[in-house]
Amino acid sequence: MSQKVTPWEVKGNVDYDRLIKEFGVSKIDKKILTRIQKHSKTLHPFLRRGIFFAHRDLTFILDEFEKGNKFFLYTGRSPSGNVHIGHMIPWIFTKWLQDVFNVELYFQFPDEEKYLFKNNLSWEDSQKYLHENMLDVIAVGFDPKKTHFIIDTKHANLLYPEAVKVAKKITFSTIKAAFGLKEDSNIGQIFYTAMQAVPAFLPSVLKKKEIPCLIPHAIDQDGHFRVSRDVLPKLGHYKPASIQCRFLPGLGGMHADGKMSASEENTAIYMIDDPATVKKKINKYAFSGGQATVEEHRKKGGNPEVDVAYQWLMFFEKDDKRLEKIYQDYKSGKLLSGELKAILIEKLNVFLAEHQKKREKAKKQIDSFILKA
Amino acid sequence: MSQKVTPWEVKGNVDYDRLIKEFGVSKIDKKILTRIQKHSKTLHPFLRRGIFFAHRDLTFILDEFEKGNKFFLYTGRSPSGNVHIGHMIPWIFTKWLQDVFNVELYFQFPDEEKYLFKNNLSWEDSQKYLHENMLDVIAVGFDPKKTHFIIDTKHANLLYPEAVKVAKKITFSTIKAAFGLKEDSNIGQIFYTAMQAVPAFLPSVLKKKEIPCLIPHAIDQDGHFRVSRDVLPKLGHYKPASIQCRFLPGLGGMHADGKMSASEENTAIYMIDDPATVKKKINKYAFSGGQATVEEHRKKGGNPEVDVAYQWLMFFEKDDKRLEKIYQDYKSGKLLSGELKAILIEKLNVFLAEHQKKREKAKKQIDSFILKA
Repeated sequence: MSQKVTPWEVKGNVDYDRLIKEFGVSKIDKKILTRIQKHSKTLHPFLRRGIFFAHRDLTFILDEFEKGNKFFLYTGRSPSGNVHIGHMIPWIFTKWLQDVFNVELYFQFPDEEKYLFKNNLSWEDSQKYLHENMLDVIAVGFDPKKTHFIIDTKHANLLYPEAVKVAKKITFSTIKAAFGLKEDSNIGQIFYTAMQAVPAFLPSVLKKKEIPCLIPHAIDQDGHFRVSRDVLPKLGHYKPASIQCRFLPGLGGMHADGKMSASEENTAIYMIDDPATVKKKINKYAFSGGQATVEEHRKKGGNPEVDVAYQWLMFFEKDDKRLEKIYQDYKSGKLLSGELKAILIEKLNVFLAEHQKKREKAKKQIDSFILKA
Repeated sequence: MSQKVTPWEVKGNVDYDRLIKEFGVSKIDKKILTRIQKHSKTLHPFLRRGIFFAHRDLTFILDEFEKGNKFFLYTGRSPSGNVHIGHMIPWIFTKWLQDVFNVELYFQFPDEEKYLFKNNLSWEDSQKYLHENMLDVIAVGFDPKKTHFIIDTKHANLLYPEAVKVAKKITFSTIKAAFGLKEDSNIGQIFYTAMQAVPAFLPSVLKKKEIPCLIPHAIDQDGHFRVSRDVLPKLGHYKPASIQCRFLPGLGGMHADGKMSASEENTAIYMIDDPATVKKKINKYAFSGGQATVEEHRKKGGNPEVDVAYQWLMFFEKDDKRLEKIYQDYKSGKLLSGELKAILIEKLNVFLAEHQKKREKAKKQIDSFILKA
């Protein structure tokens, strides 16, 4: 099955090894994991399990860090709907990086992007989701003293003049090749990547010295940073480094929903879903790697490689030994599909309850996170 | 000779009747002049002499005005070099409109435009000229209480969110057709027209009610407003109306310099030129419609239609009778080329001295003109 991975569309069963070659990113190998571990004592499960699997220039970031030249983190969220558990993956990891390296984070909310790319998204809805999504990001637990929200339409005085400098170096031909935009694309879509490039060097502009930038993000955003890595050195800035994760599959399974989609309700678990909804969605929709009957399952065992409940536990069960036991029990047929789903439901509902508590508190914290311009 | 008239290039001896047809604007006729005169008592020389020669929807503006629904004026200056006497034409007329109709003026300084369109213009120079050009605009004498400068990079918080809404309605194909931009155009150039569209409805957004907009401008900017007239009604705004002037020719004459160019020093008189420079440039470079020798001139007479000194006096000599006498004397051979140039030099140097005095005062007035955001 053919795959398509752009910032605005992910189709097909994603072959990550192929993406490494196509995009020209580097695989995260043992050597680089050992270097990270020097600073973090233990490795985050997303690193141990290859969920963050690729990078660009991470060695440069570590070299500079070890010389005493701290980097900053940059990631973002384009508001267009409710946040789901798939969105959380890069943010959870970004928080870990912030804690381990004790660095600043610039978090961009490009509140015009999805408005420009979705015909049916109104300006008002885009602004509503901006507010809602900020609550979810704050609930991740970022350090409010070291975390700065950049909102494209509210920080345009800072962003637009810098975006213009980026834009002067990018032709429509480049945009066509990098993102597949066409003659009938709107001119806001065509310009947009220049706005996404800015936070990768804005702190350097604001602090009047060049600071290395590390961008944790899902692999579909790579196109933006491929382009900006070409342009930023021409403006006297470092090439931004990046570290990339694979997608949390949708409920339909990796073959159907390579990336969880926020717009298809039955493939996603939202951060505001209640326990009963989570239970119902997983029991009803989560693609199972189990056999058709209990008897057959006991005999042949399940297939954790395609089972959504197991795949999700790879993201959400931190304990390696417990995860290994689940894997073996499911594969041997000892653990039934329904039992595996029950483990996941329990795990997710604890996670969501905790998140929803922090999300409630976040309502009073928004102002302290927004970058003072 | 073929003509080319776009916002960024004017080539050839401009045929204004052809432009009226090509651009689809309406000629300013007696009927509409009579309507304007109802409000202004006398007509500005630029109207009497067909320098402002075309319009779009000016009758709508007058209809609304007569119903008590005041319009606002919008024009602008894209900083890229020193202001020359050609730039002043639409501004002088805009001031007259402001005085006659007692209306607000929004004056845009798109300080990114020329930076995006000129390879050799640095960001720093663009910002330097922004400051210098504001002084010249203030010196025109606009009412500081009713005049609001909009600077693209300083008011991006106001402009960019609205430009995004405009941009969503414009495809690259439209931009190609309207401006001749190409695949190798940069993405800032492609987006730019959306920024130029915003001041035509920003006052309506700020005041939360729809206000008609009248844009006085040189005809080469028409492409921008053709596009924005298509888009604005889709966003719930009026189509902006416009009134268009022909170009002041460069010193080389209409056949060579259909539009005075700021970047070719020997074709332009700058607002900061001193009297000796003006005298030298006009005597040395102004294309003459006179004959080769005094004897021949006395016998055959000069040709005011191609003579730059006479053509410029059509813009700068307000007294119709005096202008008519100059015309007849030159045509009959009574007035020599050198004498005609001397009249122009005297006229321009008085105008420039007055401007330079006001320009000096303007240095303390900039802040009061900049739109409070």
